[in-house]
Amino acid sequence: MSGALDEILSANKAYADNFGDKGNLPMPPGRRIAILTCMDARLDVGRFAGLKEGDAHVIRNAGGRASDDAIRSLIISYKLLGTQEWFVIHHSDCGMETFTNDIMHGLLLQSLETAKLEEGKWVDTGKGTGSRAGQFINFLTIQNQVQSVCDDVERIRNHPLVPRDIPIYGFIYDVKTGLLNEVAQANEIGKAK
Amino acid sequence: MSGALDEILSANKAYADNFGDKGNLPMPPGRRIAILTCMDARLDVGRFAGLKEGDAHVIRNAGGRASDDAIRSLIISYKLLGTQEWFVIHHSDCGMETFTNDIMHGLLLQSLETAKLEEGKWVDTGKGTGSRAGQFINFLTIQNQVQSVCDDVERIRNHPLVPRDIPIYGFIYDVKTGLLNEVAQANEIGKAK
Repeated sequence: MSGALDEILSANKAYADNFGDKGNLPMPPGRRIAILTCMDARLDVGRFAGLKEGDAHVIRNAGGRASDDAIRSLIISYKLLGTQEWFVIHHSDCGMETFTNDIMHGLLLQSLETAKLEEGKWVDTGKGTGSRAGQFINFLTIQNQVQSVCDDVERIRNHPLVPRDIPIYGFIYDVKTGLLNEVAQANEIGKAK
Repeated sequence: MSGALDEILSANKAYADNFGDKGNLPMPPGRRIAILTCMDARLDVGRFAGLKEGDAHVIRNAGGRASDDAIRSLIISYKLLGTQEWFVIHHSDCGMETFTNDIMHGLLLQSLETAKLEEGKWVDTGKGTGSRAGQFINFLTIQNQVQSVCDDVERIRNHPLVPRDIPIYGFIYDVKTGLLNEVAQANEIGKAK
């Protein structure tokens, strides 16, 4: 058995042993919130936003981007499960700022193995063959965090299946301090007057 | 200021006040794990899997499905940030089991407002106009959790940009007990012999 698998199952048993009355929580988020954020390992949304089980939908992908799939999830969150406020949270020191589509396509062409970031430049150290399939993927990289938060709020706001007046807040989480910093201009995008 | 926004910012300040040395965590996940799971509010991955900040990538969407966007995130997780084991975790009582694409397309056609589940049937209670845009979205609904975990592991396993031998474990999280139950047949899909 893998070490990681063993550790997760042990931790999960301890969690379930102290599950309390959480088994009675209903499906719709109690605080009617949905949060879209990055998959980054340093972000624990429950802890940094003070959420308990049952409080909020949490959607996460590389960058916390408003991809088609994130929008699919947000539509389900609102239309079927009644969330009323949405948060888009990107963060400082994001991996998505370290590369471009061209760089990633090139790395994947060389090998599928894990590359290394050396002096700010990705270097492929892998063996074996790469793949040309990378060129078909837009990796949704980020050049500027404020801009990416605004772009994502704007894309969600303008989607034909998003209700006109739902509040959408933009934030950048600082991985050095743990603080959420509001991107005020994002919150204003398309806001009902 | 919205109540939800105020509460999150207060909780966040308390978190940052006790941030300790977490500001020094590196970008790559320390335990080299990536977890793909559902956005469901009842799932707190950090707590139910015993993860600390910095341990693991967490990718979440409606259903925890292996969408194109989840695969984009997993490729970045492995190729640039060195994760070595992946977990696909669906869960009992998932909202994705309560509707089909046809049902959702029909509800969105009626209105954009939140529908109600009455005696197992979604009923649109919204006012205003709906949209025909729903028909262009595949909502990736689920009929059977074991099958959806297997389908998703298989899709990831067969992707041309996924390394041949990375372990991919399949689980169903039980929202009544907090326990992770392994879908053993998923783990075997495409496993290197």
